[in-house]
Amino acid sequence: MTTRIGIYLFPNAEELDWAGPWEVLAHWAKEWPDDDVEVLTFADEEGPVTCAKGLRVLPDRTRSNVGELDVLVFPGGIGTRAQLGDESIKQWLSDLASGGTLMTSVCTGALVFADAGLLTARPATTYWAQLDLLKDLDSSVEVRPDDRFVDSGEVITAAGVSAGIDMALHLVKRLHSEDRARAVRKGIQYDPAPPI
Amino acid sequence: MTTRIGIYLFPNAEELDWAGPWEVLAHWAKEWPDDDVEVLTFADEEGPVTCAKGLRVLPDRTRSNVGELDVLVFPGGIGTRAQLGDESIKQWLSDLASGGTLMTSVCTGALVFADAGLLTARPATTYWAQLDLLKDLDSSVEVRPDDRFVDSGEVITAAGVSAGIDMALHLVKRLHSEDRARAVRKGIQYDPAPPI
Repeated sequence: MTTRIGIYLFPNAEELDWAGPWEVLAHWAKEWPDDDVEVLTFADEEGPVTCAKGLRVLPDRTRSNVGELDVLVFPGGIGTRAQLGDESIKQWLSDLASGGTLMTSVCTGALVFADAGLLTARPATTYWAQLDLLKDLDSSVEVRPDDRFVDSGEVITAAGVSAGIDMALHLVKRLHSEDRARAVRKGIQYDPAPPI
Repeated sequence: MTTRIGIYLFPNAEELDWAGPWEVLAHWAKEWPDDDVEVLTFADEEGPVTCAKGLRVLPDRTRSNVGELDVLVFPGGIGTRAQLGDESIKQWLSDLASGGTLMTSVCTGALVFADAGLLTARPATTYWAQLDLLKDLDSSVEVRPDDRFVDSGEVITAAGVSAGIDMALHLVKRLHSEDRARAVRKGIQYDPAPPI
């Protein structure tokens, strides 16, 4: 059974929010084909998606033809603000969660999850500058400002931008093993050393 | 005077090799417009570039119309192997370096720099699995296997994949200030915490 992971792209999604998890998960899928993992990007429609910093990327699929997903990765970025209150997004996310898709967010993707009711009475995190907005959207969320990511079972939320890399390594560990996650980490030489 | 930074995209470039520096540098450019920094992607020709793990990205410019560059970011990836021995690439890189462009590489981008003679008698690094090949390409390179990145003045080389993020933060520090680099780091919430 193939494990299908979909990374949602939308206008003004923050680039590293999706590119970090993409690298981790696509590295896993490509280097260990026997693990039978498929990672793909998708968007509302075909054609280029312009991200928050201006990068243009072509999605593999659309929301209507992406097929069943075992895991959704929902990035953040300024583009998430336009999604708040959008009934079609809320319904889509709610349906995915009810259907058993593991829901994961990076950065302000968590705001959209909260708006859709996915974080009710759950621990969760988001980008450091939007922790208050997360609480405003759903006061029952147990906000965790100091966690790099929060795995609450059916939903995983990561902190801002680069935290998606750490969250995706956790996903490899959860869906496969600590050994595999460690091998992927080595594959992308993820021994971070911020120079400042 | 605008500081112009070009990120070169080519078939089978590794995604995070360029997406990491893109996020850091484009974040800098967008959030501090008074710093007058321009970051753009470019490729050999117009149209989608398919990267090493299958992501398709649209470059902003081509090699022939990208204009003068203060900084070049050359990513790695399996696509670099096809570039070794390519006289047009060697000449282009050599011309850029002679013209005063700050030459930076991520991962196996350093192999192409070595092939073009840019690393002669310099300290440098590359992806952990290709340190020997770097030395084979130019035995005068002082290979630094344990450095996250090596700044040798006119040329900066980073270790594998995710090391481009650290190298790009160093670039912000070098081209502007430690304060600015720290602000960009906060902007992308780069407090890495690998879970394994």
